[in-house]
Amino acid sequence: MKPNAQTCTDQKITFFHAPQSRSGGTLALLEELGADYELRLVNFKQNEQRQPAYRAINPMGKVPAILHGGALITEQPAVFLYLADLYSQARLAPPPGDPLRGPYLRWLVFYGSSFEPAIVDRSQKRAPAPPMASPYGAWEDVLNTINQQLTQSPYLLGERFTAVDVLWGGALHWTTMFELVPETPAIRAYADRVITRPAMQRAAAKDAELFALQAA
Amino acid sequence: MKPNAQTCTDQKITFFHAPQSRSGGTLALLEELGADYELRLVNFKQNEQRQPAYRAINPMGKVPAILHGGALITEQPAVFLYLADLYSQARLAPPPGDPLRGPYLRWLVFYGSSFEPAIVDRSQKRAPAPPMASPYGAWEDVLNTINQQLTQSPYLLGERFTAVDVLWGGALHWTTMFELVPETPAIRAYADRVITRPAMQRAAAKDAELFALQAA
Ligand SMILES: N[C@@H](CCC(=O)N[C@@H](CS)C(=O)NCC(=O)O)C(=O)O
Ligand SMILES: N[C@@H](CCC(=O)N[C@@H](CS)C(=O)NCC(=O)O)C(=O)O
Repeated sequence: MKPNAQTCTDQKITFFHAPQSRSGGTLALLEELGADYELRLVNFKQNEQRQPAYRAINPMGKVPAILHGGALITEQPAVFLYLADLYSQARLAPPPGDPLRGPYLRWLVFYGSSFEPAIVDRSQKRAPAPPMASPYGAWEDVLNTINQQLTQSPYLLGERFTAVDVLWGGALHWTTMFELVPETPAIRAYADRVITRPAMQRAAAKDAELFALQAA
Repeated sequence: MKPNAQTCTDQKITFFHAPQSRSGGTLALLEELGADYELRLVNFKQNEQRQPAYRAINPMGKVPAILHGGALITEQPAVFLYLADLYSQARLAPPPGDPLRGPYLRWLVFYGSSFEPAIVDRSQKRAPAPPMASPYGAWEDVLNTINQQLTQSPYLLGERFTAVDVLWGGALHWTTMFELVPETPAIRAYADRVITRPAMQRAAAKDAELFALQAA
């Protein structure tokens, strides 16, 4: 699929990816979008993300990162926002002006600004910062906010599958698997609904294959 | 100023704000945009953010939050993205297709996904999670990424002032003041450039006034 015509995008997307890492979500999104991109593997087994060559691209030394038309885009929710707007014909992003645009932005950013900090605290078994200082307040609030939405509708924005679900469906799958998130029926059903999609399955298979091929 | 015509926005924005809190950035942005909105104060001194009335609006019990056309938008970077696109005539958001759109998304999301988690760790004097688990890796990387950009250009996206600077200029001002961020010359000059803007000054004065008026 070609990016939409409005945009300055004769250039291909370059996608920096480490197999079996957070950048797997972006791999899945690119597959859902049917996007055309050049894959550049960052080998975590060889610590390539910390080497000067990669630092020159992303000074944070993190994946996912994409380059497009000379511009660097990092941070998962930003990469999702960028790509889903770029491939707007895939209809995975409610456009500006759509009543779902606000909730779409909210859920994508909530992932990085509240859910991830909460998951890091839980995986490290450390207490959250005091509620006023913590970006997410209390873990129960995060969980209730998610469950409350998922008991009301099949997808986070309602009836419609969007890029938000690519991010959250995958994340709730692995975080329940690692018992960082308690598996409620609503969460399990949601994660299954997302990860069983053909494009998601293709991305998962591709990622496993890339991981296996990578030299230690 | 009126929101742009494309959008479904006869409705006014309702803005939930707690004086002298994180939602001050949104107050400043609304002032920079010349937006028309209804202010709803959330009184932290009386713990209103934790009461059922406010939870029914935002289950996370956090500010900033806005309601627009019945939709809830939370999380500072999402609120910024939404508002600056809505008031596109103010030209504080490079639109989709603009070469600066990607960097714009990157810097807004980086704020919530990497900078804030780092600041929370520092303010709580706790060690960051191991680099692989931490969303920001190492504090030095965060700091270098910011300084590297600000020694190159007056604003985070280059020559042009955008909504990104409303968020970051204000934040770097208070985080250097509280010595959570070391005050390099580039950071100091940048914060001053931003906070001395007339709209930023008006917002700061309004916020101080609202805080003083609020009953304990
Ligand atoms: N805030 C970043 C976090 C990205 C991140 O932490 N990525 C991990 C992959 S699991 C990484 O690159 N880790 C490599 C390292 O820190 O050495 C985002 O939202 O994209
Ligand atoms: N992840 C949220 C964090 C918002 C936040 O933590 N706001 C603080 C204001 S400083 C708050 O509402 N605190 C009230 C409380 O937690 O009781 C965002 O990015 O907007």
